[in-house]
Amino acid sequence: MLKSHPIFEHRRIFAPGPTPVPEEVLGELARAPLHHRTKEFIGLFDRVRQRLQFVFQTTQPTYLLSSSGTGAMETCIVNLFSTGDEILVLNAGKFGERWEKIGTCYGMKVHSLKFEWGQAADPEGVRGFLRAHGNIRGVFFQASETSTGVAHPVEAIAKVVRAESDALVIVDAITALGVSDLPLDRWDLDAVVSGSQKAFMLPPGLAFLALSARAHDRRKIAGVPRFYFDLNAEDRALAGGESAWTPAVGLIMALDRVLAGMEAAGLPAIFAHHKRLAEGTRRGVSAMGLELFAKKNPSDAVTAIHVPAGVEGKKIVSHLRDTFGITIAGGQDQWKGKMFRLAHLGFFDSLDMLTVLGAVEMTLKALGHPIHLGKGVAAAQTFFLEENT
Amino acid sequence: MLKSHPIFEHRRIFAPGPTPVPEEVLGELARAPLHHRTKEFIGLFDRVRQRLQFVFQTTQPTYLLSSSGTGAMETCIVNLFSTGDEILVLNAGKFGERWEKIGTCYGMKVHSLKFEWGQAADPEGVRGFLRAHGNIRGVFFQASETSTGVAHPVEAIAKVVRAESDALVIVDAITALGVSDLPLDRWDLDAVVSGSQKAFMLPPGLAFLALSARAHDRRKIAGVPRFYFDLNAEDRALAGGESAWTPAVGLIMALDRVLAGMEAAGLPAIFAHHKRLAEGTRRGVSAMGLELFAKKNPSDAVTAIHVPAGVEGKKIVSHLRDTFGITIAGGQDQWKGKMFRLAHLGFFDSLDMLTVLGAVEMTLKALGHPIHLGKGVAAAQTFFLEENT
Repeated sequence: MLKSHPIFEHRRIFAPGPTPVPEEVLGELARAPLHHRTKEFIGLFDRVRQRLQFVFQTTQPTYLLSSSGTGAMETCIVNLFSTGDEILVLNAGKFGERWEKIGTCYGMKVHSLKFEWGQAADPEGVRGFLRAHGNIRGVFFQASETSTGVAHPVEAIAKVVRAESDALVIVDAITALGVSDLPLDRWDLDAVVSGSQKAFMLPPGLAFLALSARAHDRRKIAGVPRFYFDLNAEDRALAGGESAWTPAVGLIMALDRVLAGMEAAGLPAIFAHHKRLAEGTRRGVSAMGLELFAKKNPSDAVTAIHVPAGVEGKKIVSHLRDTFGITIAGGQDQWKGKMFRLAHLGFFDSLDMLTVLGAVEMTLKALGHPIHLGKGVAAAQTFFLEENT
Repeated sequence: MLKSHPIFEHRRIFAPGPTPVPEEVLGELARAPLHHRTKEFIGLFDRVRQRLQFVFQTTQPTYLLSSSGTGAMETCIVNLFSTGDEILVLNAGKFGERWEKIGTCYGMKVHSLKFEWGQAADPEGVRGFLRAHGNIRGVFFQASETSTGVAHPVEAIAKVVRAESDALVIVDAITALGVSDLPLDRWDLDAVVSGSQKAFMLPPGLAFLALSARAHDRRKIAGVPRFYFDLNAEDRALAGGESAWTPAVGLIMALDRVLAGMEAAGLPAIFAHHKRLAEGTRRGVSAMGLELFAKKNPSDAVTAIHVPAGVEGKKIVSHLRDTFGITIAGGQDQWKGKMFRLAHLGFFDSLDMLTVLGAVEMTLKALGHPIHLGKGVAAAQTFFLEENT
């Protein structure tokens, strides 16, 4: 039997979040939580917020929200925009659509610039749209579109928006922050959001947010009714070093440890690491004869792959799960069953990628797809070895 | 860089003990220990000792010692033999020698029947020796010789000893119990010892022991001065359900969980699992063009491999450690630098073996050895897939 008996079975997550948690961090998570209205916690909270500035590459204050990343997306909308505001969403996948839904929910006039799934947003398309629509108050997009494995050209889009409008540049960096370069201050972005269960190697439960000075100014004249996600309440609490609501203390304690490690590593090493894992994965997948979903601008967080003809896509996901205990993501919406995705953001190393490539090869073979076992693994091995020289 | 930054680095153990510990068992280890003179612990201790009977395949009582496996080896000698007793050790590797050292230490007259490293002990050689030496009181050997990756023919040796003498059959099963079939009662073995950090998926600190009725009888007329390892003290305590000395309670709590899993799996599934991982590993290694150390009678616990000509053996070990965070074992004594060993006993699955095979390929390539990347991995993939049909 290929499948191990449950007592020998490992659980391996190769989904784009939650991602694996290092053992040392699991140990931290097993500690008793501090009380959140104590000097100890206030000291920790202050340190963590400073360390997040390092990851966001900003001198602006950072916010920790006890919510999923979607909560941080909503926070941007309800604090920086008002009912009736015109906003532009660059929609090139599942998560682009989420900005539209939240904006619509709060009564904004949502414009959508659609790009085909698998394509990156085109800055010149954005320029044309903004020239034709003079009242856009915010441009929303993803740094890394998790549903397609595409990285959008954040810096170029931000420049276009700045040149053509006074709209705020709002970036969902949930699977990008801590993966690829995304300097809030240097690229003059207005809002960047992320979440704990991605490059931060933690379980879900925390979202992160930072705003530009321009966005903080906008807060004074904008906003819709909001309570839990009200940044004014948060600012009042932060004046005393605390959070407005009871924070997810255990996750913040563990985050402190993760951020200490990320600081010690330095951002260039972290970005190079993800770039290397992503490229090795893409080489392996291509050597198997499979087609990458993102022909250009692939994300370093997740690799999306076309299900080959003659194979049922959902069977790839279920076979990996049932036979190897591996969780990967399939395609979403219209790409359900036609795409599968391998993540490499957070606590992964090159051997992990060999492992999942080997398991994908065996899965395709078991599903009757003609495949040369070991070929994808060998391509990744070769790349990782070359990178070592 | 091939090496991951430390924050992304996984620690992977492929040594023949300590072996990896499942996450659920780590969680159990993080619990506060019970006090060992309480009803709760006595109930647990009783259950664990019964569950060990299942693994030893015996109706005889089992002993838990808070020591390494060597302590259980010493326990056999000091309780079952007396100063001046003649004993025979089948010495086919590092651990055979350990029986000699302990016997000599307690004033026994130790005979040694040597077999080349990599060879299994020959039952007919044992027969010849016993016919020439009429006073042998015990025959000592390993079920699996960890230093050479050889499985000795336990049942055949035991039959010869029984036919030719009244010597006790003493089996070091430290890397064999819970890996391959080793029924104490059915094969009429007199003493079998094992340890927690092998097939039992736990950290080191516990040793296990069971004796035949014949061995219990021998205890009445044998023994040397002993205190910590005195089975009479243990029996007195066990009459009240307790251990003589403070036991490693945390490990015993976790062992209970492991044994529940092993019971649920059943021994045939556990043995088949190890056999499959071992065979897949051997196929992968052979496909790389490497030479297996044990040409015949390979152990299902650990695969020993000749270092190929032109490669420095210790560099294989250090490169795997420094580049991949993988711990494997090298050769011991005269085979230092000339052999390396990959373990597959305990909490491993088939993907783990692909992982280490891939890392060994990359290591040999990095060390200048001509190797076709992916070929060993592919052979293991092919075998594991065939086994699935």
